[in-house]
Amino acid sequence: MSALNEVGFLGFDVFGTVVDWRTSVARESAPYLQQLGVQIDPLAFADEWRSLYQPSMQRVRSGERAFVTLDILNRENLEALMARHGVEAGRLDPADIAAWSTAWQKLDPWPDSVEGLTRLKRRFAIGPISNGHIAGMMNLARYGGLPWDVITGAELARAYKPQPEVYFRSAEAVGLPPNRVAMVAAHNSDLVAARACGFRTVFVRRPVEHGAGQTIDLQPEQDWDVVAESLTELAALLNC
Amino acid sequence: MSALNEVGFLGFDVFGTVVDWRTSVARESAPYLQQLGVQIDPLAFADEWRSLYQPSMQRVRSGERAFVTLDILNRENLEALMARHGVEAGRLDPADIAAWSTAWQKLDPWPDSVEGLTRLKRRFAIGPISNGHIAGMMNLARYGGLPWDVITGAELARAYKPQPEVYFRSAEAVGLPPNRVAMVAAHNSDLVAARACGFRTVFVRRPVEHGAGQTIDLQPEQDWDVVAESLTELAALLNC
Repeated sequence: MSALNEVGFLGFDVFGTVVDWRTSVARESAPYLQQLGVQIDPLAFADEWRSLYQPSMQRVRSGERAFVTLDILNRENLEALMARHGVEAGRLDPADIAAWSTAWQKLDPWPDSVEGLTRLKRRFAIGPISNGHIAGMMNLARYGGLPWDVITGAELARAYKPQPEVYFRSAEAVGLPPNRVAMVAAHNSDLVAARACGFRTVFVRRPVEHGAGQTIDLQPEQDWDVVAESLTELAALLNC
Repeated sequence: MSALNEVGFLGFDVFGTVVDWRTSVARESAPYLQQLGVQIDPLAFADEWRSLYQPSMQRVRSGERAFVTLDILNRENLEALMARHGVEAGRLDPADIAAWSTAWQKLDPWPDSVEGLTRLKRRFAIGPISNGHIAGMMNLARYGGLPWDVITGAELARAYKPQPEVYFRSAEAVGLPPNRVAMVAAHNSDLVAARACGFRTVFVRRPVEHGAGQTIDLQPEQDWDVVAESLTELAALLNC
């Protein structure tokens, strides 16, 4: 893939691209939901929790509130969901909320992720350029065996993708100009923003990230530099 | 080692504790010195380069200049050394200086480091709490096979050890209070500062970091929580 000949670092979106957040958050949430008597399919609950993710980051992006890490947003969003489902304030204390929120640090990698990353790492330095916070990314890597060389992304920049600071600061942190970094993501919007910063772009198709009925990000929406069906296919395409 | 029972993260000093900077910088510098006709033992040259390290960081610590990463300081110090040795300005262009400075990213691990870290990583999250910059730490890890989970330290805090911000920001980044982090270092002064921040402390003896005539840091100077002769011995002491 000549488009990536000059690239020294592959920066990965993580939630959805490398790990399957939906079934994992559902699995981790099910015992809490049962204990609280909340009648909801755990997969639908995972979707609800995820649906609050972008709006909560948007308040940071817009400047309405100062930067806080994603673990804080996830906890606040869980509290909001509990209220929505009629769980009285006080039935869950802050320690319970915090423990439940670590569901986002126990996400199974897609079946091809560990092998794909391990092979890609032979040729490229690799790391997350995620909206997750550093500790969350570290714990997720240890949980799933993701062999990152470094953790870059939102916390380093104190901003959230698709804000350009996140891409620029991540490239700077690994010591490379933007055109020597490739963003690897299952989300077209992430690649649009990365390309606008001068990054190379790799689209990885994850057609069931949102379940069997997924309607978004099924196809590349621009001429991304590389398109792959999995991280192992990406490794093969890049001769790793 | 009950002192570390609550510890979740081991933060490592790198230059001297994990890698042998002296013989590696000498090896990487020898061809440049020969080409320029500078008559000096490469090991003595490595010592000279290193001797400018603390004073250059001190200018940042004191507020005399804004934070810049260690690669910048290393390059400036190399230029100063060239002038001292009578190499006319212009014989080395900025690209040569930059290339030579990457000597600090090609440092051999001590013989026990990779095995020791690999074993410690089974029980603890591990990462550098170094004055090195993120890209340098990443490249050094890839060069030597150091299996870090995360890279914390000076660049994250925009400060230099022993400034407390470096320890506090590193603990915060890995999501732990200071008393659940241990600093692992071959330098008593680093452990003094880490302990003052509430960290646990591990002294690793590196009696030839500065060569056979080393006079400093041969012994623990306080009752550090753990003292080990190597990272493999540390792994054994911690049941890893």
